[in-house]
Amino acid sequence: MASSKSTYKYFIVTYPAPFVAHVQINRPEKLNAFFEAMWLEFRTIFDTLSYSPDVRSIILSGAGDRAFSAGLDVEAAAQEGILAEKDGRTIDVARKAQIFRRHVDEFQECISSAEKCEKPVICVLHGYSFGLSIDISTCADIRICTSDVKLAVKEVDIGLAADIGTLSRLPKIVGSFSWVKDVCLSARIFGAEEALKVGFVSHVEPTKEKAIEKALSIAKLLAEKSPVAVQGTKELLNHARDNRLTDSLRYTGVWNSASIQTDDVKSAMLSGLQKRKPTFEKL
Amino acid sequence: MASSKSTYKYFIVTYPAPFVAHVQINRPEKLNAFFEAMWLEFRTIFDTLSYSPDVRSIILSGAGDRAFSAGLDVEAAAQEGILAEKDGRTIDVARKAQIFRRHVDEFQECISSAEKCEKPVICVLHGYSFGLSIDISTCADIRICTSDVKLAVKEVDIGLAADIGTLSRLPKIVGSFSWVKDVCLSARIFGAEEALKVGFVSHVEPTKEKAIEKALSIAKLLAEKSPVAVQGTKELLNHARDNRLTDSLRYTGVWNSASIQTDDVKSAMLSGLQKRKPTFEKL
Amino acid sequence: MASSKSTYKYFIVTYPAPFVAHVQINRPEKLNAFFEAMWLEFRTIFDTLSYSPDVRSIILSGAGDRAFSAGLDVEAAAQEGILAEKDGRTIDVARKAQIFRRHVDEFQECISSAEKCEKPVICVLHGYSFGLSIDISTCADIRICTSDVKLAVKEVDIGLAADIGTLSRLPKIVGSFSWVKDVCLSARIFGAEEALKVGFVSHVEPTKEKAIEKALSIAKLLAEKSPVAVQGTKELLNHARDNRLTDSLRYTGVWNSASIQTDDVKSAMLSGLQKRKPTFEKL
Amino acid sequence: MASSKSTYKYFIVTYPAPFVAHVQINRPEKLNAFFEAMWLEFRTIFDTLSYSPDVRSIILSGAGDRAFSAGLDVEAAAQEGILAEKDGRTIDVARKAQIFRRHVDEFQECISSAEKCEKPVICVLHGYSFGLSIDISTCADIRICTSDVKLAVKEVDIGLAADIGTLSRLPKIVGSFSWVKDVCLSARIFGAEEALKVGFVSHVEPTKEKAIEKALSIAKLLAEKSPVAVQGTKELLNHARDNRLTDSLRYTGVWNSASIQTDDVKSAMLSGLQKRKPTFEKL
Amino acid sequence: MASSKSTYKYFIVTYPAPFVAHVQINRPEKLNAFFEAMWLEFRTIFDTLSYSPDVRSIILSGAGDRAFSAGLDVEAAAQEGILAEKDGRTIDVARKAQIFRRHVDEFQECISSAEKCEKPVICVLHGYSFGLSIDISTCADIRICTSDVKLAVKEVDIGLAADIGTLSRLPKIVGSFSWVKDVCLSARIFGAEEALKVGFVSHVEPTKEKAIEKALSIAKLLAEKSPVAVQGTKELLNHARDNRLTDSLRYTGVWNSASIQTDDVKSAMLSGLQKRKPTFEKL
Amino acid sequence: MASSKSTYKYFIVTYPAPFVAHVQINRPEKLNAFFEAMWLEFRTIFDTLSYSPDVRSIILSGAGDRAFSAGLDVEAAAQEGILAEKDGRTIDVARKAQIFRRHVDEFQECISSAEKCEKPVICVLHGYSFGLSIDISTCADIRICTSDVKLAVKEVDIGLAADIGTLSRLPKIVGSFSWVKDVCLSARIFGAEEALKVGFVSHVEPTKEKAIEKALSIAKLLAEKSPVAVQGTKELLNHARDNRLTDSLRYTGVWNSASIQTDDVKSAMLSGLQKRKPTFEKL
Repeated sequence: MASSKSTYKYFIVTYPAPFVAHVQINRPEKLNAFFEAMWLEFRTIFDTLSYSPDVRSIILSGAGDRAFSAGLDVEAAAQEGILAEKDGRTIDVARKAQIFRRHVDEFQECISSAEKCEKPVICVLHGYSFGLSIDISTCADIRICTSDVKLAVKEVDIGLAADIGTLSRLPKIVGSFSWVKDVCLSARIFGAEEALKVGFVSHVEPTKEKAIEKALSIAKLLAEKSPVAVQGTKELLNHARDNRLTDSLRYTGVWNSASIQTDDVKSAMLSGLQKRKPTFEKL
Repeated sequence: MASSKSTYKYFIVTYPAPFVAHVQINRPEKLNAFFEAMWLEFRTIFDTLSYSPDVRSIILSGAGDRAFSAGLDVEAAAQEGILAEKDGRTIDVARKAQIFRRHVDEFQECISSAEKCEKPVICVLHGYSFGLSIDISTCADIRICTSDVKLAVKEVDIGLAADIGTLSRLPKIVGSFSWVKDVCLSARIFGAEEALKVGFVSHVEPTKEKAIEKALSIAKLLAEKSPVAVQGTKELLNHARDNRLTDSLRYTGVWNSASIQTDDVKSAMLSGLQKRKPTFEKL
Repeated sequence: MASSKSTYKYFIVTYPAPFVAHVQINRPEKLNAFFEAMWLEFRTIFDTLSYSPDVRSIILSGAGDRAFSAGLDVEAAAQEGILAEKDGRTIDVARKAQIFRRHVDEFQECISSAEKCEKPVICVLHGYSFGLSIDISTCADIRICTSDVKLAVKEVDIGLAADIGTLSRLPKIVGSFSWVKDVCLSARIFGAEEALKVGFVSHVEPTKEKAIEKALSIAKLLAEKSPVAVQGTKELLNHARDNRLTDSLRYTGVWNSASIQTDDVKSAMLSGLQKRKPTFEKL
Repeated sequence: MASSKSTYKYFIVTYPAPFVAHVQINRPEKLNAFFEAMWLEFRTIFDTLSYSPDVRSIILSGAGDRAFSAGLDVEAAAQEGILAEKDGRTIDVARKAQIFRRHVDEFQECISSAEKCEKPVICVLHGYSFGLSIDISTCADIRICTSDVKLAVKEVDIGLAADIGTLSRLPKIVGSFSWVKDVCLSARIFGAEEALKVGFVSHVEPTKEKAIEKALSIAKLLAEKSPVAVQGTKELLNHARDNRLTDSLRYTGVWNSASIQTDDVKSAMLSGLQKRKPTFEKL
Repeated sequence: MASSKSTYKYFIVTYPAPFVAHVQINRPEKLNAFFEAMWLEFRTIFDTLSYSPDVRSIILSGAGDRAFSAGLDVEAAAQEGILAEKDGRTIDVARKAQIFRRHVDEFQECISSAEKCEKPVICVLHGYSFGLSIDISTCADIRICTSDVKLAVKEVDIGLAADIGTLSRLPKIVGSFSWVKDVCLSARIFGAEEALKVGFVSHVEPTKEKAIEKALSIAKLLAEKSPVAVQGTKELLNHARDNRLTDSLRYTGVWNSASIQTDDVKSAMLSGLQKRKPTFEKL
Repeated sequence: MASSKSTYKYFIVTYPAPFVAHVQINRPEKLNAFFEAMWLEFRTIFDTLSYSPDVRSIILSGAGDRAFSAGLDVEAAAQEGILAEKDGRTIDVARKAQIFRRHVDEFQECISSAEKCEKPVICVLHGYSFGLSIDISTCADIRICTSDVKLAVKEVDIGLAADIGTLSRLPKIVGSFSWVKDVCLSARIFGAEEALKVGFVSHVEPTKEKAIEKALSIAKLLAEKSPVAVQGTKELLNHARDNRLTDSLRYTGVWNSASIQTDDVKSAMLSGLQKRKPTFEKL
């Protein structure tokens, strides 16, 4: 599978190394801007990778030189018109609200599939990375960017509070709430240095090529570890973010009560003693 | 209203730009130290600004050169004597505790009015910014300071755990819990550089004048955006801080189910296409 | 008590200054690696110090030059064999899971005793500080390290998700979730500079000697303050980490309704006016 | 104070026994239906009683023979027109939503004052007790009713989900969720027997006179107890409803750490030994 | 649509009255026991009904005279063998645990679709209603049963803790925790009278025919109400069950800020005045 | 072990049937009133039974004819004097508060051991069952009582809010909050019929002998089931009481991911087919 390539319409999925998948948003001619069919496919891909025994870590990036993604394709959204009048009939406010809630529920669920994915996701941000790019990247486990990246929580500038996850996740993945409020309320563009300083990304690389390389080296490193250990670690860290300490500690004990019985512990320890790389059964 | 000036006893409220209010703590001869009448007025001001359709962002600072605020006016507090014996009668411990809980409830509620305020609040810290200054500033959305600022969570030095909000909010607005414990347990003074490094403030300016200027430029920027978008963003970020992810995502969808039906979206998009500044109805 | 020395098997406890205790992990010939008897004794020590009226702050470090602790003593763990077959009888998966849950519950509880301890704990990390070292240090209130420290969340490398607290606490004491995921998933070693930048430690010192000195100066500072104020501050900050804002504010008011009635407030204020160091009754 | 009478516009407040207040909704000619000025006054009354040292328990009932309250005065609400167009100007959906949220916040807060009141509230339901009557009665601590009472969660019948507290509180004060859904979704009228069976009320009396008598006997009983004990019990039971067990247990210990130091314990115990009624200081 | 009939493999879906759907589990020859394809179809049905504008309330029952459902089809489950060895290869404990967690996640999600469904669901239990029957019925909003019903939380008798929802939901829909523990730990059969007494069901009818009739009368009643009001009420009651009071009150205000702007309020009020049945737009 | 008898000072522990333990409070001459040494021993017993592979269910009752327990031994408590002045030295309020919090923490933990115990506990209440009796019984899983029982949440009558668990647990094990408030605020005595009606107990028996018999029949029934299933069910029901639905469902799946791999499932199913009683390995 490692050298194969899955066929999707708006994404390229390749396997650059054993157990490593690389997902690229593939609409570079439109700066990788999203419309509905794309986020539906996005979910399909991450749901598939989540359960695939041949994948242990995932890189997520945008095709082309100019953008991870310019965000929502506003024109397309206008045409899809989820709140448009149907057949000339006026729909009342409460009914429009229901249509909108259902729409956002599904949209959020599609993007959240990257977070729910059992395998770690490393997101490489480059060029324009606006609006939905931030929503998507906050679902990834590790964020790295290029030094030329242009990041912005852009939604306020189209009259909206961001609703696909940025406002829910950003305060929990970055320490400075003053900074979070600043960029979310002002919609201003910020760059790599600032993103690194506040901890939004954990590495900056000079070019997209270098950034992908860096992502690949991390992804390969993770793919060589016990998948029981890596996937358990992702699950438990996400659980901790949302729960109080005593609950997390208890959940950890219950989670590991099955995981500890894996053969991977023995393999890992033995390999450690023998100074060789362990191999692990598929998961 | 923009050029007018509201009349308060312990605060100056001016309107330096359209839709921007500037609240100054005005007791510079006592380093802006607070007593009860002041925090009651503080609440009145923020409750009023919260609902005023003419205000979209707020600057909060301290009058005079020397201090944002030296904190609680301990002498005045001693005289107000909330726990003093009444008429020579001894009050028992439980009854004193009740008097104290009621007192703290009200005090907390007054200071929290800056956080509950629907409009973003930008706090400018300069000079002595001790004790209650930190409680107040943690209620603001964005904190900036001067390079000469002297910050301290001072309460331990008067034999008390801080109880007007610092201990509840600081761990949630700054990432390093080791640092939070350090400054809260030791009551030591820290400066601008340290405050910036840990993310307590998001900007440092060389002088108070420059800091107010910076605050004003942010305030004006926010005041030009859709108030539906800005106020929704503040609400949703504060909700996220206190809630787990799935609840925040759901709340976001429900909140936006009404907000998305605003005319501001159309105005903002149209202005974007026409490369001009949009204007928005009062809110 | 200040100059005395308690006798423990795997730890040295000294009293380098009035009201200051210093706990050293004392198995330097094995890089201070832990086995079961050690964490049981660890709990005994912290439970004792928690209630001792003669202790107001605690330093925690590792004896010897080479390591705070290499982590779990894997060989010893293998011999203790909590999941080993008993009397040649096969134990089924569910029954092994129960044995394991009970084991982890107790292990977690022992390590958590440092966090539950009513007095502030300052942890000095030096040399190898792997695996369990991170679990332990996340229970401390303030972390400092030497510039040569080698830190790692090592568990993934033995086929396990860390289960003694690191995954539950790390996301709550450091702001960058991207960084937390990076080090927890990869098990890579990181150093002092990185630890300081992300806020995991709040000070770095060039040598172990200097680091202990720094820890002692903080510990002495805290020990001179009102113990009612210091211990209340620790309690309220830990409460805040795990609770929503309104609950923390309320809990603070209820907590202080008894604490405010201490004589320490008067002592502290009087000493402040008289420019002398206050002394406080034992607690 | 016991025989005096406070003067309010829409309520009668009397003091039928030492430390007992009786609040009557007093608009019997309109079946005690509520409009805005009434719920504002309702809050004023309960806030006052909450802090009055002369009151230890409160009865809440409706004046006249026919109704506790018919609910919201829909006509008055229509005239107050919180969502009406202002000056012929169309207000957009998001702006109307904000007006409405502010309105509901205040309305909820007014009614919640009966729950927030530090003294126990015994609610006597008789005759028509529709809509807002249920919102109000769910804020009381103890509910009793007459055998002729007509209860209904009526809001669905005017095209609304009840929003002043019934839907938030009813699932927490009655055990059968099937029954709660049945009456809330159908808006059907239910009577005393059903209310008693599901635990919505704890006593049924044949007439309003008897019900007031019963309420008075409970109120007097509570007023004779230690107010420290009674008010602490109300606080802790309400805390338990909303919090997980370990948090409630901890909060209880912290709460009582001041309360236990009351003289009431000695008075109560001594009186117990001497077989006489204790008296307690005002609180 | 009212007289039409949807075609499903294991369920019959009819429309016995305007806006009322009736879902019948249709495998009476096997006492309506479930296997995987059935719960997948169950989800498809409830997801479809949830969004169908032609459905406002739903009846759920079991075809045939003998059982709502005997529960899981244990034989079929054994054959599907989710934990069976694959290709003679031994799968380790941690890997089996992962397969099982994925399986349970999906199974729970399928059954939860009845709770997540936006329209109220009335469940009619008759005959054997074991195991999965209880899981399913706890997802319904209103439960009614026949006097001959045989209810049991049967899972303990096959060596399992129930994991498709009964243990999570039962403590929240019935008041007596002593009773809940009794029936869940003992797996004993209980009948209609007991189910009514503890509030598990809200009505008992002598025969299945009568019970369906009763369900239909409730379903028709709900279908005649404003769907905005009914669906909002379901949402807010479910939210209240899982959230603390202040959060529920706030969520209610935000939810209604859009819903209150519906035309249904006007229609409902006008019809009330004109003493005629209102009609409401589709939702 | 079944016929043996453990030796404790204040309790009798017998084994009336295979895998069934019977714990009796044994101070009948003082109506089984508790003092500190007793609750410490209470914890030792339940901690021991919790881990004993020879015990699968537990009966808890009071020795003698007259009382389950009269509650706290107030005289003994007065002599132990946890808040008494030490050596004639006055202790200040905050320091007393700390002593008290530590005392209550330990007291609560001792009583909670019955709830934390992994095996189901059936509590038989007879005669005087006041104060601490209620705290204890709310920790049990199943409560049954004799028809002559006298129950009371007595603490208010000694000037205290109950702090050993009643106020935290009662609202969660009984449906009618109106009734809970009534009995907790008034301290009034209530009997078997009322206790059954509100669901506090699930069975009433005419005599203590009959009640013990009933408890034994339940205990034996539970002891014959798979201990993996029974203990998992207790854990998951207690988890559900304190957690929101989605968390409970997820925790259930993770818990069962190990438990499902037990041999008990096969044993139970096979026995079912063969119509014989299964036996299960010790746990």
